[in-house]
Amino acid sequence: MSEVYAARRERLLERCAAGGSATALVSRPANVRYLAGAAPRGAVLLLGRGTDVMMCAGPLGAHPDDERPDEALRIQTLPGAADGRGDPAVAAADLAVAHGAESLAVEEHHLTVARHRAIRSVTPRLRLTDLGGAVEQLRVIKDEEEISCLRIGAEIADQALSELLESILVGRTERHLALELERRLVDHGADGPAFATSVGTGPNSGRRGHRATDRRVEEGDFLSVCLGATYRGYRCEIGRTFVIGTSPADWQIELYDLVFAAQRAGREALMPGAEYREVDRAARQVLDSAGYGHGLSSLTGHGVGLEIDEDPQLAPAAMGKLDACVPVTVEPGVHLPGRGGVRIDDTLVVRPEADGGPELLTITTKELLAL
Amino acid sequence: MSEVYAARRERLLERCAAGGSATALVSRPANVRYLAGAAPRGAVLLLGRGTDVMMCAGPLGAHPDDERPDEALRIQTLPGAADGRGDPAVAAADLAVAHGAESLAVEEHHLTVARHRAIRSVTPRLRLTDLGGAVEQLRVIKDEEEISCLRIGAEIADQALSELLESILVGRTERHLALELERRLVDHGADGPAFATSVGTGPNSGRRGHRATDRRVEEGDFLSVCLGATYRGYRCEIGRTFVIGTSPADWQIELYDLVFAAQRAGREALMPGAEYREVDRAARQVLDSAGYGHGLSSLTGHGVGLEIDEDPQLAPAAMGKLDACVPVTVEPGVHLPGRGGVRIDDTLVVRPEADGGPELLTITTKELLAL
Repeated sequence: MSEVYAARRERLLERCAAGGSATALVSRPANVRYLAGAAPRGAVLLLGRGTDVMMCAGPLGAHPDDERPDEALRIQTLPGAADGRGDPAVAAADLAVAHGAESLAVEEHHLTVARHRAIRSVTPRLRLTDLGGAVEQLRVIKDEEEISCLRIGAEIADQALSELLESILVGRTERHLALELERRLVDHGADGPAFATSVGTGPNSGRRGHRATDRRVEEGDFLSVCLGATYRGYRCEIGRTFVIGTSPADWQIELYDLVFAAQRAGREALMPGAEYREVDRAARQVLDSAGYGHGLSSLTGHGVGLEIDEDPQLAPAAMGKLDACVPVTVEPGVHLPGRGGVRIDDTLVVRPEADGGPELLTITTKELLAL
Repeated sequence: MSEVYAARRERLLERCAAGGSATALVSRPANVRYLAGAAPRGAVLLLGRGTDVMMCAGPLGAHPDDERPDEALRIQTLPGAADGRGDPAVAAADLAVAHGAESLAVEEHHLTVARHRAIRSVTPRLRLTDLGGAVEQLRVIKDEEEISCLRIGAEIADQALSELLESILVGRTERHLALELERRLVDHGADGPAFATSVGTGPNSGRRGHRATDRRVEEGDFLSVCLGATYRGYRCEIGRTFVIGTSPADWQIELYDLVFAAQRAGREALMPGAEYREVDRAARQVLDSAGYGHGLSSLTGHGVGLEIDEDPQLAPAAMGKLDACVPVTVEPGVHLPGRGGVRIDDTLVVRPEADGGPELLTITTKELLAL
């Protein structure tokens, strides 16, 4: 794996150099992990001029399960930061100067004003520039190793969900169902849940990001579930809506069919070269033209990877085009205040049509199941 | 409750005014919650000149369980930030200027360089100053309402722990025990765990911040558990170490007694006026003089409240003195590589001796139980 990380760092430095800086300081944890294979708490990466160093706040490897950083990196450890000294970012900037750097590109969207100021005061002659989202941009297109982690995570989530569906649901609270799903994710080998598992029943169903409450499942409810597994750091997402009882009501069937059609339209729009907002529009217009345009979520999908909410955003004003090997969610939904609603959410990988089109990672059925 | 929040905001503005700024922008979520009773995702607070406004990224109250912000606050909502517009901090700065503010104190330790720059570019004439840790300082001393939330959280954690101890432990993995504890916390009314529950067995026992692994509990192991409940936003912490099997080995008894003595010394040092580092020293020197000085954690305790790790830090170089009504943990521990160790962790509230001295919130026994 070491070559993978080295290659990523090299690509980043090429972009940096094009922006006028030969040295970069990466502080955002997911970016550190992407470039170094691990992100110990508080660690930053100093890259450039042949001096790739991970600067850590405390000793590494205290924990047997700790991910190990790439062995090709030099690791430097500072004494505990409890006394206010020893910010790894400041120490890294100091080291950059010692190696003759004149400028340093930092992640201004992650570094706080206070840390930036501390760097400036310790290294007043170092010109600080903005690395911007350069690492985030590199992270958008995944290699097959990364996709394989997402695929395993999706299998785990599918399995946890399918086991839940075999159990008795009526009378149990949203909170309990969410906790049980998270336990099952871990049972099946996940590092943990990819985000707080969302279970919504009755009037809470169909709501994006709903936090589980003490409401109990009742006959006739819609039940929507959204969960994901983290596997080797990679996070996927699946969402499904079910109906509780033997026969769904007419309005439930109609609403479900509509959201299903919207989600399918979104999935079918996934192809290399498609604009982000085209994909959003494909799903959104199905709901829009049925009169549900008001109150829709501001996006219908987003990238996933080391974070659950990555670039790209599939939203009306998003700029950019999909590439092959970009994993995204497609997750339109409708929520009717007081009644509930439907949300259907898959994680897929964009693939060229020649390779069979988008690869569905979350394979649980999207038929309307009555449980 | 509304008067409580208004009084907190007023005290903050007094401090601000003393620092030369009549207007403040609070962005750190725990600080927003402290001053407003709720911290919707992305929301910031603009305070001063009679214009207390909560600026939100999206509509409030979409969720029945959402905490409601103080009704005395004006709430202003921006359109979704998915398209890159609509940073509530920028909008708040703009509003401050519209109200005639000439300077604005921001939280430089929380605001990123990029957001700070965005504020400057939208309001170039507004002088930006640093609010520093002013809100964090206000948060150190708790009122009785806050302490009562911590007390209930501690009862919940005690209860979850006592139930676990009644179950069979041998053969179960750290990960399962941790998940079961978290489920029990929620069963007993917690909003959720206060932090990732830590369960360490055998060689993993006694390690601060150990993340649960797939190791199974074995006869003769030390088992250390650290957990906490969040109750109405307030987070407490308890840690205990047990031995598995009928008779602990001599080294286990000796080590346990030593850590117990250190923890007691730390607890007994808690009184209004005691220096933070005196409390640390009281616990640390017990371990130090027994030859375990090397490899100790950089702190022996810390404040708790809306965050699990707040001011003060009880550490060798920490500056400051304890006040009454400050809740802190006392949590010394020793870990012997390859063998395991002991950690004992309580949450207590500093009280004057006339009131009976420190109030222990986590009352689970600290005898060495053999399970």
